[in-house]
Amino acid sequence: VKITKLMLIINALIFLALLKTCNHVQKSSFCKQHENPFFIPTASMGTRIHTSEGASAPTRLLRAVGLFTGDMRQFGEWVKRQVFIIQLLDCVLRGVAQVMFVNNPLSGLLVVIGLFVQNPWWALNGLLGTAGSTVSAVLLRLNRSDGAVLAGLHGYNGALVGLLMAVFSAKGTWYGWLLAPNLFMSMLCPIVSSALSSVVSRWDLPVFTLPFNILVCSHIAATGSTHPYFPLHLHQNNSFENLSLPQLFLSVPVGVGQVFGCDSPWTAGLILLALLLCSPTICFHAILGSAAGMCVGLVLAAPHMDVYSGMWGYNSVLSCIAVGGVFYALTWQTHVLALICAFFCAYMTSAISKLMSVLALPACTWPFCLSTLIFLLLSSENPAMCRLPLSSVSYPEENRHYLKQLKASGKAPTHNRVGNLQEGEANDQLEVESDPSDSVKVQEM
Amino acid sequence: VKITKLMLIINALIFLALLKTCNHVQKSSFCKQHENPFFIPTASMGTRIHTSEGASAPTRLLRAVGLFTGDMRQFGEWVKRQVFIIQLLDCVLRGVAQVMFVNNPLSGLLVVIGLFVQNPWWALNGLLGTAGSTVSAVLLRLNRSDGAVLAGLHGYNGALVGLLMAVFSAKGTWYGWLLAPNLFMSMLCPIVSSALSSVVSRWDLPVFTLPFNILVCSHIAATGSTHPYFPLHLHQNNSFENLSLPQLFLSVPVGVGQVFGCDSPWTAGLILLALLLCSPTICFHAILGSAAGMCVGLVLAAPHMDVYSGMWGYNSVLSCIAVGGVFYALTWQTHVLALICAFFCAYMTSAISKLMSVLALPACTWPFCLSTLIFLLLSSENPAMCRLPLSSVSYPEENRHYLKQLKASGKAPTHNRVGNLQEGEANDQLEVESDPSDSVKVQEM
Amino acid sequence: VKITKLMLIINALIFLALLKTCNHVQKSSFCKQHENPFFIPTASMGTRIHTSEGASAPTRLLRAVGLFTGDMRQFGEWVKRQVFIIQLLDCVLRGVAQVMFVNNPLSGLLVVIGLFVQNPWWALNGLLGTAGSTVSAVLLRLNRSDGAVLAGLHGYNGALVGLLMAVFSAKGTWYGWLLAPNLFMSMLCPIVSSALSSVVSRWDLPVFTLPFNILVCSHIAATGSTHPYFPLHLHQNNSFENLSLPQLFLSVPVGVGQVFGCDSPWTAGLILLALLLCSPTICFHAILGSAAGMCVGLVLAAPHMDVYSGMWGYNSVLSCIAVGGVFYALTWQTHVLALICAFFCAYMTSAISKLMSVLALPACTWPFCLSTLIFLLLSSENPAMCRLPLSSVSYPEENRHYLKQLKASGKAPTHNRVGNLQEGEANDQLEVESDPSDSVKVQEM
Repeated sequence: VKITKLMLIINALIFLALLKTCNHVQKSSFCKQHENPFFIPTASMGTRIHTSEGASAPTRLLRAVGLFTGDMRQFGEWVKRQVFIIQLLDCVLRGVAQVMFVNNPLSGLLVVIGLFVQNPWWALNGLLGTAGSTVSAVLLRLNRSDGAVLAGLHGYNGALVGLLMAVFSAKGTWYGWLLAPNLFMSMLCPIVSSALSSVVSRWDLPVFTLPFNILVCSHIAATGSTHPYFPLHLHQNNSFENLSLPQLFLSVPVGVGQVFGCDSPWTAGLILLALLLCSPTICFHAILGSAAGMCVGLVLAAPHMDVYSGMWGYNSVLSCIAVGGVFYALTWQTHVLALICAFFCAYMTSAISKLMSVLALPACTWPFCLSTLIFLLLSSENPAMCRLPLSSVSYPEENRHYLKQLKASGKAPTHNRVGNLQEGEANDQLEVESDPSDSVKVQEM
Repeated sequence: VKITKLMLIINALIFLALLKTCNHVQKSSFCKQHENPFFIPTASMGTRIHTSEGASAPTRLLRAVGLFTGDMRQFGEWVKRQVFIIQLLDCVLRGVAQVMFVNNPLSGLLVVIGLFVQNPWWALNGLLGTAGSTVSAVLLRLNRSDGAVLAGLHGYNGALVGLLMAVFSAKGTWYGWLLAPNLFMSMLCPIVSSALSSVVSRWDLPVFTLPFNILVCSHIAATGSTHPYFPLHLHQNNSFENLSLPQLFLSVPVGVGQVFGCDSPWTAGLILLALLLCSPTICFHAILGSAAGMCVGLVLAAPHMDVYSGMWGYNSVLSCIAVGGVFYALTWQTHVLALICAFFCAYMTSAISKLMSVLALPACTWPFCLSTLIFLLLSSENPAMCRLPLSSVSYPEENRHYLKQLKASGKAPTHNRVGNLQEGEANDQLEVESDPSDSVKVQEM
Repeated sequence: VKITKLMLIINALIFLALLKTCNHVQKSSFCKQHENPFFIPTASMGTRIHTSEGASAPTRLLRAVGLFTGDMRQFGEWVKRQVFIIQLLDCVLRGVAQVMFVNNPLSGLLVVIGLFVQNPWWALNGLLGTAGSTVSAVLLRLNRSDGAVLAGLHGYNGALVGLLMAVFSAKGTWYGWLLAPNLFMSMLCPIVSSALSSVVSRWDLPVFTLPFNILVCSHIAATGSTHPYFPLHLHQNNSFENLSLPQLFLSVPVGVGQVFGCDSPWTAGLILLALLLCSPTICFHAILGSAAGMCVGLVLAAPHMDVYSGMWGYNSVLSCIAVGGVFYALTWQTHVLALICAFFCAYMTSAISKLMSVLALPACTWPFCLSTLIFLLLSSENPAMCRLPLSSVSYPEENRHYLKQLKASGKAPTHNRVGNLQEGEANDQLEVESDPSDSVKVQEM
């Protein structure tokens, strides 16, 4: 049965990868994929969208696909003109997807479906957390102007807080009182995010999932496994078995699903689909990171059940995505760096989870945050390891596109960071139709 | 008996609140309360003090009260011209009061009396610590020019170090050898303060009681409960009893007293009096914070003895004071923020004390420091949540006064922080008679 | 036997101190000691080297000694023109010596001999680690231009990582598989160094041995004592014995040797020799720091075996060297500060090692890093406590020389930090023949 599941997942991935690649080839050649056949261009959008008339049928198909991939900018523009409830829905879906550095509401929808497949109660808590933290950010007026809220950047920590508090709860599903600490904690997320961001923005760094780690660890330390109202169960596997190759193979997608605390292969498959929808590079690095984590787990003689359940993979998945194309421009050097970071992250996972188990805490995504912060702070003089300024970070394909245009205009970065160009200036000189300042943000705040 | 104590405390508070409020009304209407009937104005003071002749008797009474409330600036000016030993005494008393963000030697005297009521040996150690750290700061020449030492800002960490090392000592009272590590640790306070201040001043943040936390935790970790020379006892209550309402009611002032490690209600009453003397806002937020901490303790099913002893309150007291009026200008939004911060701080207290008990360490005031740093780093765009620049922080009423004058002169802050005006410039333009740069400092360094 | 060893060490030290002092007197009077009798001055060196013809025989001898002491700049210049393998050898030897803030390949050679005396397998792992981290820094192109790699600043963390992973390994000597994690960890050193340096350089601070601490603690936490492939043994002594004076006396040099994890007095003697070769001030402060740590150990009632084995000394050794002359200019005030820092560091060693033993981790050199960072962040207004800018830090004698010239040219520092002069400018105005920007770097990165 498990092999069948695997086949299904792999087939779906291959199909989508083909479609996406076609679309990407199309994008590179035409470079005007941001057309929107459903809406009449308004004045505010008119300057950026050019209708290329007389396109052939396959071109139109690819363009329609293009509308639902990447960061779905046209859809975002359309949402901005709608009532608050639709905006919130878009924010929540983007927020759920932002856990994996994906700024795409359709990917978010796929992930939410995946969560409902795993456990509807968990999914509900995740959605409540996302909505709570987004609303809290709006109430606190946290930089609403630059689109951080609209890009879901104030939602992903809340999503993880809501989800993981439900996952760790020992009271089982549909224990209604859990919604109260869930809402309180998720509404604190934007406060902690904003505070951490004030600190790390000095080094042009994102806050990643640090607010989630801090708040969930606070909750777990404050309650614990014997608490009368909010008891916890922290699963620990210490059993060794004979190595099962199919399970090992399955552990790679499951490791990706464990980012959301889910161990169902179906959920993992849907999450991989969601990644592929936004960017094949992200999807590829997610699989690569999970595999790297699995390998380190085997090398360090971890209990086999831990390896199968994907506990060794999920931190490496996030690290590998972040370094491999999202915050660094993708070259073969940064690809190697992403792989090294995934290995280092798995090593850190082992160290941190052992240390934190002394304090009866789970590792959460601390290993990812710490190892990736180290790799982003690296200041090499190698021009092929070029870190993007935080304000122009988007999905990997768009990042490469952005850099190529920068280089073409003679602004090749000499150091490892692209000079902090003023956005407006860059756009004028490059005559690109994209505006990186509005909704093209990935976990940066 | 306990109810009688409560009544006494409450009566005293109400009386003083009335007096203070009268005085404050007076202050707002006349705006020249800084007259000093005891001293003939000298040349150095003449520019700022204007004698309003022919004032009626109640006005004169209120002015005399005004001399002993707030930050007692005239007294500070007078002390500056005295011999070193009187200056040191003033610094020590202000240092003891600065634990609660109060810059007032009379408040400090009341607190010291409260400490002697609790335990003379503890009080003596507290005074030694304050004096030691102040002298050490003078010897190291730590920014003596800008009045940090004179405002007691190099004393409050020493006060807590001396006091708590005596509180935690298992050798009982009058164990003379304790004075040696006490003096060593309190003299290290200014070094750690200065170092931390170099780091956090980049974000315009105060160091709070972090030096105290670091040094006392070092001492406790270095010695422990089985040490032959300096053994410790760390009290832990795990007993549940029936909830007693009078004790619960009493736990609110006791929570304020626990800031100094004291559980006597008389000490707590004197400390509340000391707070009221400086600023009713601080006193009110102290009570509010303690109540908030008590509530979280009950909600999180804490042992009742812990709640009664005020262990759940003291961190929230400090957080609530700091956010509610001291570092933020007091509006109803920041009042709500202070309440949220008090709840969050109590939550953190629970988490941190459980984690640190694994390492056999007490929570000290780590929860206060961490939660308040988070709330001060928050960067909201809401104009009603206006953080003051560290150099013009004073007591809440003075802060509001300062901001109103800033706004009146058209320098309304657009962001959440008032632009770092140069003090001299601000004074010239506003023609205020107060000079925020000399002794109006609260835990900022 | 042990007393004999002591005598030998002391004799050697006295002899070298005499020689060095003579040489230093010579240096001050002639101020042209940078002559190089072995090489014909090339064009690139010609501007800085002036041949003083007709010097007498003892002068010539002292000059020859001068060539092998200090930071051996002429040798460094010569190495720069050689093939890669000789450059790497020089880097590795300087890297091993940089553990003790010494930038001298001959000192490094002495230390390596000392390590081979202790245990050839440990020495081999240390060399592999140094080479691995140096090569990794070259591959990552980490600031090769400013000579950090050539000064061995990317080697010392790797040296400690390689050495200590071998010391802590429970598989005994010549367990070949250990070389794999050793190489992986030491090649990660430059990445962690570069990341930390990006953070702390905002405060003009060095990274010290923090990368070593982070990576070795990660390794130990990730494996532990029961690991099937890489088990560890963490020695803990809790036995009290009668105090033995000779052993106590011997514990002072052994404390210096424990910086490299070695407890052989011969190794310690060779390391002291290596320090003396570079700078008598460093050697003196190393002994002073070790003695201070020993005293604190006795005062805090530590197990006598711990004190004898030098476990209480090695952190204080490093702290005392760093504060006493390397990062601060040596005056009697900073000498006292170095002593206070050594005492504080020993106190922290006790605290941190107890806390980390709960997590089954050794203290490594965390106490040194934290206490020294605190003392370097201290911002006193005392002109006698003058911190050098990181870019002109060299060995203590050179630092004093540099400052004197600064003062002579009327650029006396008013604050505790010398203004960050541009190197070139400073050299032009002072007409010194030394160029602090090329290879005169000590653990700064």
